[in-house]
Amino acid sequence: MSWTLTADDLPDLARGATLLGTGGGGDPYIGMMLVKQVLGDRSITILDPDDLADDLFVIPTAQMGAPTVMVEKIPAGFEPTLALRTLEEHLGRTADATMPIECGGINSMIPLIVAAETGLPVVDADGMGRAFPELSMETFAVYGVHGSPLAIAGERGERVIIDTGDDDRQMEWLARGIAIRLGGVAHIAEYAMSGADVRRTAVPRTISMALALGRAIRVAREEHRSPFAAIADTLSTTLYSHVRELFVGKVADVERRTTEGFAKGTAVIWSADPSSSERLEISFQNENLIARWNGEVVAIVPDLICIVDHETAEPITTEGLRYGQRVRVLGISTPALMRTPDALRAFGPTAFGLTEPFVPVEGETAAAEAADTFAAGQAVRA
Amino acid sequence: MSWTLTADDLPDLARGATLLGTGGGGDPYIGMMLVKQVLGDRSITILDPDDLADDLFVIPTAQMGAPTVMVEKIPAGFEPTLALRTLEEHLGRTADATMPIECGGINSMIPLIVAAETGLPVVDADGMGRAFPELSMETFAVYGVHGSPLAIAGERGERVIIDTGDDDRQMEWLARGIAIRLGGVAHIAEYAMSGADVRRTAVPRTISMALALGRAIRVAREEHRSPFAAIADTLSTTLYSHVRELFVGKVADVERRTTEGFAKGTAVIWSADPSSSERLEISFQNENLIARWNGEVVAIVPDLICIVDHETAEPITTEGLRYGQRVRVLGISTPALMRTPDALRAFGPTAFGLTEPFVPVEGETAAAEAADTFAAGQAVRA
Repeated sequence: MSWTLTADDLPDLARGATLLGTGGGGDPYIGMMLVKQVLGDRSITILDPDDLADDLFVIPTAQMGAPTVMVEKIPAGFEPTLALRTLEEHLGRTADATMPIECGGINSMIPLIVAAETGLPVVDADGMGRAFPELSMETFAVYGVHGSPLAIAGERGERVIIDTGDDDRQMEWLARGIAIRLGGVAHIAEYAMSGADVRRTAVPRTISMALALGRAIRVAREEHRSPFAAIADTLSTTLYSHVRELFVGKVADVERRTTEGFAKGTAVIWSADPSSSERLEISFQNENLIARWNGEVVAIVPDLICIVDHETAEPITTEGLRYGQRVRVLGISTPALMRTPDALRAFGPTAFGLTEPFVPVEGETAAAEAADTFAAGQAVRA
Repeated sequence: MSWTLTADDLPDLARGATLLGTGGGGDPYIGMMLVKQVLGDRSITILDPDDLADDLFVIPTAQMGAPTVMVEKIPAGFEPTLALRTLEEHLGRTADATMPIECGGINSMIPLIVAAETGLPVVDADGMGRAFPELSMETFAVYGVHGSPLAIAGERGERVIIDTGDDDRQMEWLARGIAIRLGGVAHIAEYAMSGADVRRTAVPRTISMALALGRAIRVAREEHRSPFAAIADTLSTTLYSHVRELFVGKVADVERRTTEGFAKGTAVIWSADPSSSERLEISFQNENLIARWNGEVVAIVPDLICIVDHETAEPITTEGLRYGQRVRVLGISTPALMRTPDALRAFGPTAFGLTEPFVPVEGETAAAEAADTFAAGQAVRA
């Protein structure tokens, strides 16, 4: 069912989106401020995927770049809408709605800026079901909708259109080159598609899930209940039904570099008990990719690896990690449509150069059951 | 007057264009082979700028990239025409003719490939009057025609459109980012303009000049006359009326690196007389930028610094320089429209980070006379 979102919802949405950012995705705070400024006391219509007309024309909008740059290079604000308008002009067709390509991090907010500026509704779905570092890592692409033509807008009004046919990796490669030359961040419109395509290829209801997660954490804190139980309760009603505490400890080391347009590195978390030698090591490329507990893989992409404050469950991005922070690390299962062989080729371990195979965070048995349900065509509509 | 060009003209044109490449511009040989292959025994119509209708629609075509890469990465052949078609589609208007943006090096040939493939005529003019390393270094831009929108085509059919309004340096910056990611070479269509704009902003008759230079050198050799006298005779009838022998010697050192999409470095030429300590040092960014004789500047951009074989006058590109080669270095004056304060800002010494002021290669007095003539509106039509 479609619903409306107001400025009051934004802090909860930002918190949930940061959790789904799995360490990356860019801090939604700046995006939230931009939405608030444009939206005022109006509201944004959020369309449920089930309500979309088959021929509704949807143009997703987003920001691309290294999260480490995004927090320092504030957009002027007009860029995402300029990207949308540039793509509309190129296609000779106006959008009926926009949509996130990525529900985690700042890209939960970019389509809302466009909606606030243009009055367009926003589809409650995305193409990553979390955050990923590259534009080709989309369920859209996995299931046959391609990113090209893509439009880029820069803060000085620069406009670029890239068309690589159905080669989404080449699209990412060229667009990243432009983003780097625009200073490390760019705003884009891509993966234009019909309402029918959204239903077939998108991860559904991820805006509402982010909002529900952020709200559940806040309300649990206010009511002095466990925010971790609240996260588990909320997820149990979604396609992301399993959550597991991977580790509790303190940040011992963060090695991070911004290279080739990405933030890459490793975080090491030690047990809070000084007599213990237990440690969790997390490698990231913008987002957390793999968690090794004393060397053994306990979670791996595309499943979510989320570092949160050990008491408040406030999610912590990679660029927010500091030595000595007390944290919990959560592993969250992803929907079955994000774990098919085609999906794993696009954004599973090998897509990041990892040699470790994908292992579901909830264990093989539970995952097999979920996959059976997906194969029967049910889980995507849960 | 308009004229026709056939495959028989191509070797002479290539030789002249290499001379005008001033060490860079990319070796025209590969481009010549591509033109020959497509053209067969047909001919190409070359339009004199004076014959253009004011509203003729001209889309120049070119290759961009580092010359060191161009000689190793052969185009498939369809790319320049794909760039033209992409820009036509974007503008909603078809071209009546194409034109070089750069008469030196391989870019003397790229518009001929397009002409051979499409049947379009080619305008006998360009925007550099030689070769320059960057897309913003155009008399077109200096006199008010801007490069955007620019279309890029890649060898796998990639198509990119870049629009930076009237900021041609930002256009160059973004296009260079794409060229690097396409492997160091890309094909482009840009600076779309009217016939009236061509007459107002282009360096006229540079294809015919390149052809005449290349032919004069060859015929002089065949007739056992001095090719250097032939060069001087040919230039005396053009806007490039002064030529000066800057140095005779042998190549002692070449330091060259391909960086940020350019070939940059220094060539050192020693006197052939071992008892002499005289030396000429030439710095280049794709093209030769400045020549220092025992430390004293004897020629500097935009004037032409051409290294040629000491006997045959065959021009030698930067990537063709070898230790021990016997060479002559020629300094050639540029037309007055390439030496105005606006022109020098775009492609004079400071545009390349050089602190030395521009000094005309033929001396201040002769240059002042030429500039007076230009100011009176005569030289451009010579």
